Amino acid sequence: MKYGIAIFPSKKLQDVANSYRKRYDPHYALIPPHLTLREGFEATEEEIQKLTPVLHKISDESKPFSLHVYKVGSFNPVNNVIYLKVKENEVLDDLHRQLNPIEALSERDYNFVPHITIAQNLSDDEHSDVYGSMKMKEVNHEELIDRFQLLYQLENGMWTVFETFHLGKVR
Amino acid sequence: MKYGIAIFPSKKLQDVANSYRKRYDPHYALIPPHLTLREGFEATEEEIQKLTPVLHKISDESKPFSLHVYKVGSFNPVNNVIYLKVKENEVLDDLHRQLNPIEALSERDYNFVPHITIAQNLSDDEHSDVYGSMKMKEVNHEELIDRFQLLYQLENGMWTVFETFHLGKVR
Repeated sequence: MKYGIAIFPSKKLQDVANSYRKRYDPHYALIPPHLTLREGFEATEEEIQKLTPVLHKISDESKPFSLHVYKVGSFNPVNNVIYLKVKENEVLDDLHRQLNPIEALSERDYNFVPHITIAQNLSDDEHSDVYGSMKMKEVNHEELIDRFQLLYQLENGMWTVFETFHLGKVR
Repeated sequence: MKYGIAIFPSKKLQDVANSYRKRYDPHYALIPPHLTLREGFEATEEEIQKLTPVLHKISDESKPFSLHVYKVGSFNPVNNVIYLKVKENEVLDDLHRQLNPIEALSERDYNFVPHITIAQNLSDDEHSDVYGSMKMKEVNHEELIDRFQLLYQLENGMWTVFETFHLGKVR
C-alpha cells in the first residue's frame, strides 16, 4: 500500500490554493491542498503499525509552528510545478528530516523546499503563461500548524487520512 | 465552517465502494467512501476546540468493533441512495448516539441505519435499474474498525480530515 505524510493548512489557505488547482492541477480531486512532508512510499500494514509510534514520538517532541506562505514559485526547469512557497522554518525542516529515511535525504542531496502545489503537469507554454501571471500575485499569509497526517492511496488515486499526529504532546 | 464525523473503512472496502461510486455517486471526488456517524453541522473553530476533548472522551471510552457489510440496500422511496448495508452493532449504535446532539436523535425518531453510500442523486428510473442489478450482488465482508475522523468541508465541497479519534485508549 502506498502511504504519504502531509500537512493540511487551514480551510482558508486550502480554499485559496483550490481556486488555482481547480484549473491547473490534475490532482485537484485526489487530495485537498497540502504540504508534503514525505512523498508516497510503499509499506505493509504491519510496517505502518510499527511506524505509527515512531511518528507519534517525532510529533510529540516537535512543536506547533508558524507556516508563512509568502510568494508563488516554480520548480521549472526541473518540472513545471507551480506552488505557494513556504518560508523555511526550523521545525518544518526538522520534521522533514525526521520523517524521511536517511537514504532519501542523501539521494536528493537534502534540498527540502516546503511548498503547496497549485499547478502541475503543464506544458512548457502553459507553464510559462500561468506562472507569468501567477508570480505577480501578492501572497502573504501566516498561520499556526499544529498537526500532520499519515495518508494512504486508494486504487483510484485518491488519498484517505489514516491518522493525525499533533505537534507537541497534547494528550 | 461545516464539520462532519465519519469512519473510513479499509482500503480494500473503499476500493470496492469506489468501483460503484465512480459511476453512480456525484460525491465520488469529494470524499473517500465512508460511514457517516454525524451529518454535516455548522461550528466555529472555537466550538470545535471545545468539542475535541469531548470526542476524545467518547472514543477513549469506546472500543474497536467488527464492521460487517452484508448486503446492498436502498433508502428508496425516502431517497434514491443505494448503499452497502452495515450490520447493526452496539458499539456503532452507542457511538452514533453519543456523537449526535440529543435534538437530532429525537427529531429523526432515532433510526440509525449504518451504511456506506455507493450511489445517490439517481433518477427513479436509474435507481430502479441500478438497484435491481446491485441488490443481487453477494456482499459479505468483515473488518476491524478502530478509529473515526472529524472532517471539515472546503468551499469546493471536498472534505479534509481534521483529527483522528481512536476507539479505546491507545496512548
